[in-house]
Amino acid sequence: MIQSRFDRVLAEMEPAGLSQLLISDPLSIFYLTGIENHPVERFWALLLRNDSKHVLFSNKLFNIPATPLTVVTLSDTDNIAENVAPHLLDETLGVDKNLPARFLLPIVGAKGVSAVLGSDCVDNVRACKDEAEKALMRRASEINDICIEKVAAFIHDGVTEIECSRYLDQCYAEFGCEGLAFPSIISFGANAADPHHASDGTVIKEGDCIVIDIGCVKDKYCSDMTRTYFWKKADPKHLKLHDVVREAYEKAAALVRPGVPLSALDAAARDHIAAAGYGEYFTHRLGHFIGMEDHEKGDVSSTNHAPAKIDQVFSIEPGIYLPGEFGCRIEDLVIVTENGCEVLNHVDLGVKILGI
Amino acid sequence: MIQSRFDRVLAEMEPAGLSQLLISDPLSIFYLTGIENHPVERFWALLLRNDSKHVLFSNKLFNIPATPLTVVTLSDTDNIAENVAPHLLDETLGVDKNLPARFLLPIVGAKGVSAVLGSDCVDNVRACKDEAEKALMRRASEINDICIEKVAAFIHDGVTEIECSRYLDQCYAEFGCEGLAFPSIISFGANAADPHHASDGTVIKEGDCIVIDIGCVKDKYCSDMTRTYFWKKADPKHLKLHDVVREAYEKAAALVRPGVPLSALDAAARDHIAAAGYGEYFTHRLGHFIGMEDHEKGDVSSTNHAPAKIDQVFSIEPGIYLPGEFGCRIEDLVIVTENGCEVLNHVDLGVKILGI
Repeated sequence: MIQSRFDRVLAEMEPAGLSQLLISDPLSIFYLTGIENHPVERFWALLLRNDSKHVLFSNKLFNIPATPLTVVTLSDTDNIAENVAPHLLDETLGVDKNLPARFLLPIVGAKGVSAVLGSDCVDNVRACKDEAEKALMRRASEINDICIEKVAAFIHDGVTEIECSRYLDQCYAEFGCEGLAFPSIISFGANAADPHHASDGTVIKEGDCIVIDIGCVKDKYCSDMTRTYFWKKADPKHLKLHDVVREAYEKAAALVRPGVPLSALDAAARDHIAAAGYGEYFTHRLGHFIGMEDHEKGDVSSTNHAPAKIDQVFSIEPGIYLPGEFGCRIEDLVIVTENGCEVLNHVDLGVKILGI
Repeated sequence: MIQSRFDRVLAEMEPAGLSQLLISDPLSIFYLTGIENHPVERFWALLLRNDSKHVLFSNKLFNIPATPLTVVTLSDTDNIAENVAPHLLDETLGVDKNLPARFLLPIVGAKGVSAVLGSDCVDNVRACKDEAEKALMRRASEINDICIEKVAAFIHDGVTEIECSRYLDQCYAEFGCEGLAFPSIISFGANAADPHHASDGTVIKEGDCIVIDIGCVKDKYCSDMTRTYFWKKADPKHLKLHDVVREAYEKAAALVRPGVPLSALDAAARDHIAAAGYGEYFTHRLGHFIGMEDHEKGDVSSTNHAPAKIDQVFSIEPGIYLPGEFGCRIEDLVIVTENGCEVLNHVDLGVKILGI
């Protein structure tokens, strides 16, 4: 177990009024204990108690290393709720955001306590990366920087989106990545108008925009970045929109520092795009938190007025999407620092026309 | 929407006393509507109501086809609970097993109703495959039969477990599979004593048992089978244990028919292994249900006394595991038929010593 992380979560539980918190997210359990497990449908949970009588609930089929924690090992034929209830305090039970109904409802029923969402106690701690985590996130983004330029260089006449995605898979594998942080989005031309377009057999053609939104997982931490290129030539209107998106990114990034409301970052980018006349075409939030998962708890949106905190890591990714025609997005990851932010990506943000 | 499947789920809700059921499992929603979606952390749910005022909750960022269902499309800045509550009846809300706490707790709070697990209403329907599904499951298992024999033929002096896994990936890809139903378990010698061993760099050596537990996903449906081979020679004790496991499998398979308690299948296999003196080394349940997921709701275990029903598909997979020494498991998938069962795998169950 990693005591400093336990202590940080327990410190969050006190002001939240929680004496106990049941954590079921395998990544949160890994974060706190160093124990990796893939429980699939089986029960795997860590109960944190403010009297330090923490309990790790495991299963006979899990192959987990020795731990100083108290471990309750269940079998597939044990009743989970009846085995968990005796370890709970007679007080409101905090649960994390992913605890599924099949565990939540029987457990609170067996103990006769009420449940509340206590996920922020662990998610807010995970949001602020420690030194070891920041080093891993820098490395994952360094690989992403290299690989996005490799993919850009790979694009050639006749190439399809899916061929680019497969080439990227190889690039990441050469760096020893565990896999993709999310399905790669490589979109040509009008396909780019869908921010979540799935790469398909579309062939590149002259004048296409090329949205490349990609990320890898390296040593358990994710990268995520986007660049929008053009193939051989570009419509002047599209070039202007690329400028607008880049400026929106720069305006938001310039504001990042501890204490700034996250919604103010979203507003800075959104206002700039709206002033250019494209507000209705920026259809998503400005960014999301990231770490061991590509999308972690926390976003940079118009409704999240929470202040940025030092060591948080999130994306800044404004975009403009013209249905049936065009899409442009620019995205970097940033770490909030004492006076501003550290940008994890270093690939140039300016217009780049490929194939010329 | 697939009306026959809607009707079957609604028919289950009535005896369960549920007027409304909130389904969040993307595979269950696909099963009912034909709409595939990967919502990641966003809210994607289907509300079934007994007055037929069903509602599909979507998100602006999802790219879903037209549907005759009423669709409520949210954005990332909308409050989910406040948008769902007006569509709920003032009655107990059934929820499916995977609905995460981050949606469940705010929704029941906003509406002021209580929630109960209503997952069986959809899971029990999904458990009984219709003709289209049975055809897909036969095909996925046919591919698995071919590929397990290809892997067995691939094994050679110096080969590692992970090389076998990678070779299998290629075999599945040649059949156009979407991917693995679960991480392939290819275990040599003492590694096989862990039923969930992750393939690693272990090199094959003479006398090793070889557990190959693999499955693919083809056209959204899973296969899953296990055979245990030997490399070049086999300890007579290990050969005897292979016979015991095969006989345990055969005793259970021979009992399958509608109405037989699933626990009786587990007992038939378990009693046979216990009679041979190895009861304590059969450490897991006999089987699990399978379909679009490798492990679906429903198992074949000592505590599940539910009767088998026609068109259910599950695994029968007895095993014996001697820590530090040996493991053996034999697994086929079966479909319950009117008079017995249809076995989906056709690879011989007898002892096979490879490399000679």
